[in-house]
Amino acid sequence: MTLESRIAEKLSAADRFVPPNPPHSIANRSVEELAAAIDHTALRPNTTQNEIEKLCKEAQLYHFAAVCVNPVWVQLCRSLLGDDNSAVCSVVGFPLGANGEAIKAAETRWVVDQGADEVDMVINIGALLNSNHEIVAREIKAVVAAAGSRPVKVILETCLLQRKDIIAGCVIAREAGAQFVKTSTGFSTSGATLADVQLMRWAVSSDFGVKASGGIRDLLAALTLLAAGADRLGTSSGVSIIKEASESFADSVNTESES
Amino acid sequence: MTLESRIAEKLSAADRFVPPNPPHSIANRSVEELAAAIDHTALRPNTTQNEIEKLCKEAQLYHFAAVCVNPVWVQLCRSLLGDDNSAVCSVVGFPLGANGEAIKAAETRWVVDQGADEVDMVINIGALLNSNHEIVAREIKAVVAAAGSRPVKVILETCLLQRKDIIAGCVIAREAGAQFVKTSTGFSTSGATLADVQLMRWAVSSDFGVKASGGIRDLLAALTLLAAGADRLGTSSGVSIIKEASESFADSVNTESES
Repeated sequence: MTLESRIAEKLSAADRFVPPNPPHSIANRSVEELAAAIDHTALRPNTTQNEIEKLCKEAQLYHFAAVCVNPVWVQLCRSLLGDDNSAVCSVVGFPLGANGEAIKAAETRWVVDQGADEVDMVINIGALLNSNHEIVAREIKAVVAAAGSRPVKVILETCLLQRKDIIAGCVIAREAGAQFVKTSTGFSTSGATLADVQLMRWAVSSDFGVKASGGIRDLLAALTLLAAGADRLGTSSGVSIIKEASESFADSVNTESES
Repeated sequence: MTLESRIAEKLSAADRFVPPNPPHSIANRSVEELAAAIDHTALRPNTTQNEIEKLCKEAQLYHFAAVCVNPVWVQLCRSLLGDDNSAVCSVVGFPLGANGEAIKAAETRWVVDQGADEVDMVINIGALLNSNHEIVAREIKAVVAAAGSRPVKVILETCLLQRKDIIAGCVIAREAGAQFVKTSTGFSTSGATLADVQLMRWAVSSDFGVKASGGIRDLLAALTLLAAGADRLGTSSGVSIIKEASESFADSVNTESES
């Protein structure tokens, strides 16, 4: 079955997709489970060494899934975190996705050499908008190959895409051997939405990762996107979300014991 | 003289620098001279092939200095423009500057192979903020070497820097063999300002390039930044600026002949 026919099949099936409304109820999650779904993120270009050191300390304290940093900080994070704590995730072709397959592969090899455990790559968005699906498939395969056994998350930048492009991007990411689709860079016109995450969860099926990112600043947003089908959240507000969760979940336990 | 002592010397001299106020009067420029100072720019990640084709047609029509595009479009622009028209300028480490010296050098080699005539690179902004000047000098040298004889413009992202960092960035760019300093990526908190361009013009001296970019949307902004010392402007509003200039300059000629 060709890539185009798989995309066509999924687009056809999408006509019959009705997102759960309301979405899957917000599951009971412990604070620990919530932290284990968060990529603790610092991608601003003016991030300094002190901020990276703080990020790593917080990741160790709260047991976040990963720290997510620009390539220049991977080596420092690796040495600060050691091998037994949060993973080190870095970004490739970030945030525009317009620097070409060969460079994305080279960037991937470089961050892996520096110690990255996970790679979040941005697709060639213009190619997807022009329905040049093979270009997108090839670049994802090149990054997956360069990443070796490490998980690759494919950033679609959903705010710039139509529904059909999001579906095509999900099909391509699966076919090309990635482990996740990811909504957003956090550097474009908007971030993760409930509807996009529901659509992506449906499009990739249940045995594939969905990372929601961009604009996730509080507990309600985090829980809503997890309930919509995300299994990883990229946010720079991880600490405040976990603090909010600790207070809220404690409240609900108190309430229950009082009732 | 070491890099640090050159930076210290310039910082010391900067205490005595008083920007011209009002700036150098807005010079009489022909429409042709204005067009020849403009890098006709399309760097949004969702730029499509049609838009790139239009960009190149406009560059030929108005005789802009260059088209400025993401790496994935360099080959197409090269083939559309041939060798006798506007230059093809591409970007490296763009727009965050946080992907590392080795990758910036590889990106430079790649865009040059694809046909780029000029390279606009973003510095490691965190390193400059941490006063790790040698890191910034090394990466610029690596890009300059990879670019061969092609001009390199060093993007400082002035909106994220303090005055001392802008001055240091200018000294480093000169020492490292670049041809221009450039204010902004257009993807951060703000773009070129009059004060920053005046400071950069002073800091690099008169025999070095200054490119103003980010937020230049009309003729007044264009002429003001040129008067402040810029010799190149990066803008996606080149066509409307030239149209405005054609009308304004025609008006002033008419007024003169009537008086």
